[in-house]
Amino acid sequence: MFASLTNAQSPQPLNLMPQPANVKLGSGALKIDANFTIALTGHSEPRLDRAATRFLARLQRQSGLLFAQQPSRAAKATLVVHTDQAGKDVQELGEDESYALEVTTSGAKLTAANPLGVLRGLQTFLQLVDVAPDGFTVPAVTVKDQPRFPWRGLLIDVGRHFIPTDVIERNLDGMEAVKMNVLHLHLSDNQGFRVESKKFPKLQELGSDGLFYTQEEIRELIGYARDRGIRILPEFDMPGHSTSFFVGYPEIASGPGPYALDRKWGVLDPAMNPTEEKTYKFLDDFIGEMAKLFPDQYFHIGGDEVNGKEWDANPKIQEYRKAHNLKSNEELQAYFSQRVQKIVSKHGKSAVGWDEIFVPGVPKDIMIHSWRGPQSLAAAAQQGYRGILSNGYYLDLGWTAARHYAVDPMGGAAAALTDDQKKLILGGESAMWSEYVGPENIDSRIWPRNAAIAERLWSPQSVTDPVSMYARLDVVSARLEWLGLTHRTYYRKMLQRIIGPATPEEFAAQKTLADVVEPVKEYTRDETAPGEATSQTPLNRIVDAVSLESDTARHFSALVDKFLASACHDAALAAELRAKLNAWRQNDAAFLPLTQKSSLAKEGAATSRDLSAIGKAGLAALDAISLAKPLSSDQQSQLNAVLTEAAKPKLQLLLVPVASIQKLVAAASQASVCR
Amino acid sequence: MFASLTNAQSPQPLNLMPQPANVKLGSGALKIDANFTIALTGHSEPRLDRAATRFLARLQRQSGLLFAQQPSRAAKATLVVHTDQAGKDVQELGEDESYALEVTTSGAKLTAANPLGVLRGLQTFLQLVDVAPDGFTVPAVTVKDQPRFPWRGLLIDVGRHFIPTDVIERNLDGMEAVKMNVLHLHLSDNQGFRVESKKFPKLQELGSDGLFYTQEEIRELIGYARDRGIRILPEFDMPGHSTSFFVGYPEIASGPGPYALDRKWGVLDPAMNPTEEKTYKFLDDFIGEMAKLFPDQYFHIGGDEVNGKEWDANPKIQEYRKAHNLKSNEELQAYFSQRVQKIVSKHGKSAVGWDEIFVPGVPKDIMIHSWRGPQSLAAAAQQGYRGILSNGYYLDLGWTAARHYAVDPMGGAAAALTDDQKKLILGGESAMWSEYVGPENIDSRIWPRNAAIAERLWSPQSVTDPVSMYARLDVVSARLEWLGLTHRTYYRKMLQRIIGPATPEEFAAQKTLADVVEPVKEYTRDETAPGEATSQTPLNRIVDAVSLESDTARHFSALVDKFLASACHDAALAAELRAKLNAWRQNDAAFLPLTQKSSLAKEGAATSRDLSAIGKAGLAALDAISLAKPLSSDQQSQLNAVLTEAAKPKLQLLLVPVASIQKLVAAASQASVCR
Repeated sequence: MFASLTNAQSPQPLNLMPQPANVKLGSGALKIDANFTIALTGHSEPRLDRAATRFLARLQRQSGLLFAQQPSRAAKATLVVHTDQAGKDVQELGEDESYALEVTTSGAKLTAANPLGVLRGLQTFLQLVDVAPDGFTVPAVTVKDQPRFPWRGLLIDVGRHFIPTDVIERNLDGMEAVKMNVLHLHLSDNQGFRVESKKFPKLQELGSDGLFYTQEEIRELIGYARDRGIRILPEFDMPGHSTSFFVGYPEIASGPGPYALDRKWGVLDPAMNPTEEKTYKFLDDFIGEMAKLFPDQYFHIGGDEVNGKEWDANPKIQEYRKAHNLKSNEELQAYFSQRVQKIVSKHGKSAVGWDEIFVPGVPKDIMIHSWRGPQSLAAAAQQGYRGILSNGYYLDLGWTAARHYAVDPMGGAAAALTDDQKKLILGGESAMWSEYVGPENIDSRIWPRNAAIAERLWSPQSVTDPVSMYARLDVVSARLEWLGLTHRTYYRKMLQRIIGPATPEEFAAQKTLADVVEPVKEYTRDETAPGEATSQTPLNRIVDAVSLESDTARHFSALVDKFLASACHDAALAAELRAKLNAWRQNDAAFLPLTQKSSLAKEGAATSRDLSAIGKAGLAALDAISLAKPLSSDQQSQLNAVLTEAAKPKLQLLLVPVASIQKLVAAASQASVCR
Repeated sequence: MFASLTNAQSPQPLNLMPQPANVKLGSGALKIDANFTIALTGHSEPRLDRAATRFLARLQRQSGLLFAQQPSRAAKATLVVHTDQAGKDVQELGEDESYALEVTTSGAKLTAANPLGVLRGLQTFLQLVDVAPDGFTVPAVTVKDQPRFPWRGLLIDVGRHFIPTDVIERNLDGMEAVKMNVLHLHLSDNQGFRVESKKFPKLQELGSDGLFYTQEEIRELIGYARDRGIRILPEFDMPGHSTSFFVGYPEIASGPGPYALDRKWGVLDPAMNPTEEKTYKFLDDFIGEMAKLFPDQYFHIGGDEVNGKEWDANPKIQEYRKAHNLKSNEELQAYFSQRVQKIVSKHGKSAVGWDEIFVPGVPKDIMIHSWRGPQSLAAAAQQGYRGILSNGYYLDLGWTAARHYAVDPMGGAAAALTDDQKKLILGGESAMWSEYVGPENIDSRIWPRNAAIAERLWSPQSVTDPVSMYARLDVVSARLEWLGLTHRTYYRKMLQRIIGPATPEEFAAQKTLADVVEPVKEYTRDETAPGEATSQTPLNRIVDAVSLESDTARHFSALVDKFLASACHDAALAAELRAKLNAWRQNDAAFLPLTQKSSLAKEGAATSRDLSAIGKAGLAALDAISLAKPLSSDQQSQLNAVLTEAAKPKLQLLLVPVASIQKLVAAASQASVCR
């Protein structure tokens, strides 16, 4: 039985994300105070003990309560956690993550077959705890829950910009909170090689600018992830995206060398030499070493975006192609992929690769990771290949949470698959490509939107309401900061840095602007300033600080819609709109002085003028609506000209509320304005 | 030559804190971009290398720039740092901390005799870097600087509430930023014993609730502090404040036992038995162990607040007193102190103790730590004893920064000392007693006010202008967050937790109230709810979250003063005041619903009503002033009644702007209201 999360018995909706498969609200609530206890029964292992200790610490942080009791093995406790049996020594794809949670006014019981289910259920419990009129409580509730997909991942590109372990760890905490179970580390690219190799030390010594994880740090990260029910999938991209290999080992490249790290990005020329045995010898040794370091069953070998230029330019490679009857560079890459896939198999792992590795003849145990789209994934499934989806989940493109949320691995061509074929689609991964992402802003690029993708991959396919999603996402976003994520706090710090020492009023002016601005979408930032940015360009600008989805603009848009839908344009809503529009209109006067004292603030100057202009335009429209006096066509074209100008990005900044103001102007232009 | 920090040549004042002894502004500025380099010349040691690396990392964080070059030993660099000679292996009291910093438009040079001076100068340089119209810059400037006092400390009480190492570390970073050089850890008290003892393991096993530092952690902290030019002074309080010793070792107590950790605080009865040789045997072994663990020359033995009740109740102790002609418990304590002081000397250390240990006959090498006041310190100096001041610097009392700032170790009775006697006053320590302080709010209890005390102890005695101090403090406060301090971010998180899931408007209502509220002052919180709070009481209330000095109320107060001083009551200032008063008046309507859904928010209900009431009262006064129509005596008494009620603390919350509103009402009551 699948129950709605809002329920007549409960005055508040449950702020659960991802939404569980089955929820039934009871009546009353369990009180959480300093006497709260947690006990573990059934199967025991150190991972569960650590989970209970972490659970208590988090509950303590989230409530501010100080608990007198440590976790025990008693049969009685406020929350009794029962685990049936052990999990696998190395977490496996498809391990049981189901759990049942029953909360009554007198206590709670969490039951799971496997420690993974306990981890998931503890997060559900934590999300249920909140402050209430009589202290902290958990509503009486029955939850029976399990994931829809077994592979629910987040890819972090640590190649283009290195991301330190503490930042990775807090993101693992965030993933645990929303029940994701795979962290895919994109560990090498043209800009950097990020893992210590003991067999090939020049990889990190010459290929990383000193920014890499030691093997000890990798082992710690893997342990940290395992404790949270998360697998770590390593990716070493090849034969393209691999300049960082060649700085230390030019002998496996296709060009004459020498190579230096690339500071720019895109589809670049360097590629491994697929025609030399020494390349495979190198990869055999290298993959052998990494296969031992990373215990996961899966090993990602990349395979994307080879432009073939180095292959075309190398006469020996061309000869080899002819001699072996390889008709195209695609066939040459297919040959390479199959050789590498065999090496991966030899070391006991299953290979994962991007769409490009899916060519006729590739072995069935390979897993397709689709950046191209559901079509590609469905085609693979039809031929018996397993796959996961990342197309539609690229966090760097600046899509809204709702747009990501609407992408379903079973959508599009996959919907027409047979049941057996559907089983081959194992889930998906959101992807945090790091061209414009560093340790300061990575959290705000991943969160909170990633929680919506996590819900897509965990919750039943029928859970699709974006209004409910956003209502819960706003709550989750605030809570994630208690885990140590910094998407909100670093936003403020970065804004502060942009304007330098400032009064509260000056800061407010900067924030009023920044709150309604987003970076340009998709790949526009690269396209509008081609070749300018490098991996050493500072990420300290307004465009780097602002959210990829403005909460303020989203709330404003909802307010405009509500106002326009209201009978005769509700006066209270009009007043609320007017206050906001007025604040925007007046903001440029306060922001202008900042542009004169800070080069970084100056980048917001044009957008700030636009914000004032659209505030003014919105007020004109609102007046017309309130007075029931439609705008003249002159007024309309004047306002539309303002909006057209404001809709143009300025220094890669998008002024988001323009579309909502356009709606107001459109309404104000109609003769049927309410009288 | 001592130059003012504001200077005709510079459009902006220098945001330096503490203010250096000598500053001379040049013209122009040094540009800081990705090509910035730092080089070390002269004496070299690993501590300096680490300092340069940390400096670059901080400059990177503070600017968002990514620097291409690591620190070098080149003769040329943007910033060349020259160190004449090595410092002491263990940092000593009075080691040379002076430095000279010369910044021109083409480069900068920092010179110091000793690595400590380098550390101080690097912080000055960092404070000078800011965003400017053409990128990040440092103004051309010549600084010659040295501290006024050699002992500039912060005491953190980790006994009453344990403070984890990561929190201590970020506070060490904050101390370094404001050039403090002693972290005094109050390591034991009735509520907990916080260091691992290998000789007496029951100290931490039974006396700490599991919350203590291992010896390894202590060594790491000492190394962390040494890298930042900070000594760590350990304190083990005795013979009183020592229940945590007795839980594991009742045999050294004066009472019959058994003992359990105290959960409440105050001056309690348990005290060590000063009449038994086994007590001294224990302390000899214990102090011997701790003297090895803590390398500092000084060792604090506490000595405060012994009420003597256990001594009076123990017949054997009474017999001993008679037998040894000790006329009072004070004399008995003096005997104890002298015995312990000898033990401390035997282990190669110099003892420090609170005022109480200063009794006739105590050896001259003891250092007096004054919680009682400057009188006591001056009296000690007159007799040839060295001393440091903490009276006036207790951060837990909720004083304003300005009030702490006005306290001078050379003030009061000390001003009349001879020059030789004055030399015995070595400085002071701010003190963070932790009755109502935990890891979440300790930063906001220490910072930013501690920076004002740091300036008092470093800068020339003539630096006393509170207006300049506050202007710079506001800047320092924002910068400290970049070091990882959380006084601002945790404030927001704690407010969020108090109201639970909330809209931005709901959060704003909570923040508008919290921004102008402070906890009751001095010891009123204990006195108004006697015996209620314990070391296990949650610190999650509004009173725990709000600042000890409201920036908003301070700015409002300045605005009111400016308005009342303005000729005929400036209209722009009146409008600014009106906007703020209106926001307060309207806030209760927005806050009220929160009090109905959260037990923690409910504690603000009465204060929120008061805020609306004083907003309304302020508006009435403002109207009277603007209309030049003095308030009638009826109106006056009505408004004064409102203010009198609002001035009363409610649930330990003080509504700070009441005094400013009283000024407005007083002005509005005068017949001479400007016409």
